[in-house]
Amino acid sequence: MLNKVRLLTPGPTPLPERVRLTLARDMIHHRKSEFKAVMGRVQEKLRVLFGTQGTVLPLSCSGTGAMTAAVYGLFNPGEKVLVAEAGKFGQRWRAIAASRGLEVTNLNAPWGQAVSPEQVEAALEADPSITGVLIQLSETSTGVLHPVREVAQITRRRDVLLVVDGISAVGLSPCPLDEWGLDCLLTGSQKGLMLPPGLALLALSERAWKKAESVTPGCFYFNLLKEREHVLKGQTLFTSPVNLILGLDESLDMLLENGLEALYAKQWALTMLTRAGVSALGLDLFAPEHFAWGITSVLLPEGVDGAEVLRLALDKYGVCMAGGQDQLKGRIVRIGHMGWVDWSDVLAGLYALERGLTEAGGFSGARDYLEQGMAAYRAALAGKPGEALPQVLVHS
Amino acid sequence: MLNKVRLLTPGPTPLPERVRLTLARDMIHHRKSEFKAVMGRVQEKLRVLFGTQGTVLPLSCSGTGAMTAAVYGLFNPGEKVLVAEAGKFGQRWRAIAASRGLEVTNLNAPWGQAVSPEQVEAALEADPSITGVLIQLSETSTGVLHPVREVAQITRRRDVLLVVDGISAVGLSPCPLDEWGLDCLLTGSQKGLMLPPGLALLALSERAWKKAESVTPGCFYFNLLKEREHVLKGQTLFTSPVNLILGLDESLDMLLENGLEALYAKQWALTMLTRAGVSALGLDLFAPEHFAWGITSVLLPEGVDGAEVLRLALDKYGVCMAGGQDQLKGRIVRIGHMGWVDWSDVLAGLYALERGLTEAGGFSGARDYLEQGMAAYRAALAGKPGEALPQVLVHS
Repeated sequence: MLNKVRLLTPGPTPLPERVRLTLARDMIHHRKSEFKAVMGRVQEKLRVLFGTQGTVLPLSCSGTGAMTAAVYGLFNPGEKVLVAEAGKFGQRWRAIAASRGLEVTNLNAPWGQAVSPEQVEAALEADPSITGVLIQLSETSTGVLHPVREVAQITRRRDVLLVVDGISAVGLSPCPLDEWGLDCLLTGSQKGLMLPPGLALLALSERAWKKAESVTPGCFYFNLLKEREHVLKGQTLFTSPVNLILGLDESLDMLLENGLEALYAKQWALTMLTRAGVSALGLDLFAPEHFAWGITSVLLPEGVDGAEVLRLALDKYGVCMAGGQDQLKGRIVRIGHMGWVDWSDVLAGLYALERGLTEAGGFSGARDYLEQGMAAYRAALAGKPGEALPQVLVHS
Repeated sequence: MLNKVRLLTPGPTPLPERVRLTLARDMIHHRKSEFKAVMGRVQEKLRVLFGTQGTVLPLSCSGTGAMTAAVYGLFNPGEKVLVAEAGKFGQRWRAIAASRGLEVTNLNAPWGQAVSPEQVEAALEADPSITGVLIQLSETSTGVLHPVREVAQITRRRDVLLVVDGISAVGLSPCPLDEWGLDCLLTGSQKGLMLPPGLALLALSERAWKKAESVTPGCFYFNLLKEREHVLKGQTLFTSPVNLILGLDESLDMLLENGLEALYAKQWALTMLTRAGVSALGLDLFAPEHFAWGITSVLLPEGVDGAEVLRLALDKYGVCMAGGQDQLKGRIVRIGHMGWVDWSDVLAGLYALERGLTEAGGFSGARDYLEQGMAAYRAALAGKPGEALPQVLVHS
């Protein structure tokens, strides 16, 4: 009773009451008109969120399932792809591509940094037989945002498909598929979409749909073309995760209520809040330059036990944050500010981080960081073009 | 307000309030101790339901996903399998096997009948290079129950894996994996388990786990061995469908409350109710001999428009039943009596069926069928060995 538990992880995220009550509705049949009507509404809203005139497929799987569907549906074994690898989920692209029998050229960036458009361009110049680039928009393991818009300027001029993992980015920062010229954009339900895990979404460009026609799907369960046929009739190829689709109908209403610009402005402001607060604590941001809008990674001081910091934050203050994965285990804290999270939740996260650090012996005497965070938050929300609001917001 | 809508389809099914309220819970993190504890409890209960000492994998996909996982994880391309095909889902086994590059020998039974153990034995005798048999326990498209127990007597003596689709059977009729000697048993969440769709469950025999070690998984998303490693630590390989797992914890408590025998006795009694009522209506049962315990198929009289019967039942009486698929479109009605359904729901189904038939001009003057159905129901529940209760119940 002392604390409410607050999920500030990079997914799964807290859920709005509206969505939760919808998830509790009794079942409706997935082959009848009521469900078809929901599918139609959801499709229209997903097109807005994904910034596309094309079809967005709802798939019954996790985000990794959608990544598999993309690779197995867009490339034939033996094709060459470029993987932009800057963290754990870049590694996953590589593993999925290898399992499909693709030849992989790896472009690496140190964890915490982004692969640059220049690196991509040079690699494509060096090997014109490459037919795809696999990249994360937001690399969840580090909190890095890849310059996908700039990468798309390179791929769209070539016969190269740009496949974007938007799992911790869609609904959190701009990613208009048609305008930017992405070829595939996918996400999972448990991040920006404010739903439980178990539903993935995937959209393709016109040229990617054409490419899919020339590919024999590598896995029976993932058949992009047949799935699209069904979605256009308000159905899915196999049984739909019905209550997640009903929940999506609700959460998309909330996300789109005041338009995409308001949605992204909120995420930008929460990011500014977190980053200003962390900096005021004297801590280093792990992704200093290219940073995601739904997750902030913080480098811990040398010698501090990251697991202990997280344990104290959770046990004493009820705030659940994530640590580092693999080589970053114990070295960073990842603060999620995605899903049904607002400024007050982030304040709780900053406070729990400071107390966890102090009580774990890594820190002391921090002041003003909550106020400095909130000042940055208010400034971001009040920002005008050229000031606090990033250009990408203004242009999309 | 005139009717409550009642789902009497072979999935998805109505959901108990206890389960629905659990689905509405706020999110918990899938990599933390609270979730691991749930996973541990769920695993113990699943072992009871599947009748196995082994591990039952929860997968984030539909039932077809689990079928794909089984075929892609247990057989290498080029292996030969026997498909027992007696309906639409037998065809699906065949399609999945073909997509994996397996050589398929088909054993067909007319829709409404079962493939016999003798057919299977003869086929295995004729071709000793066959390494697997793919079969439905309950063929959802026809309501037929395959004699899987007898088929297992044949396969367990050979180096042949018996892979059983239990999607509309697990939780509805006996299917103890270890005792019967099945090698793979899988199901989906939206049938006997009283959950929304989006979660599949899959269990293997010891020798199937060994076989899996010799197979290169055909699809990155479905990796049986790595999945088992994670499940043994209270995790899943990729992100879990958290709220469905929480709901499963709840629904398994309900299903197992009075033991498996009580669960199956209820399903048997509902089946007797439905079949006696349908027979009293003068209608032919579409699966006369080998019939499932969660779904009853009814052959409509010649010249009756099945779609119209279903429309009348739904629009005028609020009862949602399913029609036939593919070649059975318009010719049969499938009454689901699975999930959170009791005798009173089935009475509503029988009444709506009679009225639909009468008002569609295929019928008139039926009497006593509700009472006859209920008499059969009470007799089944009161049955002693050798009387109404089937042998399979007594022995399991």
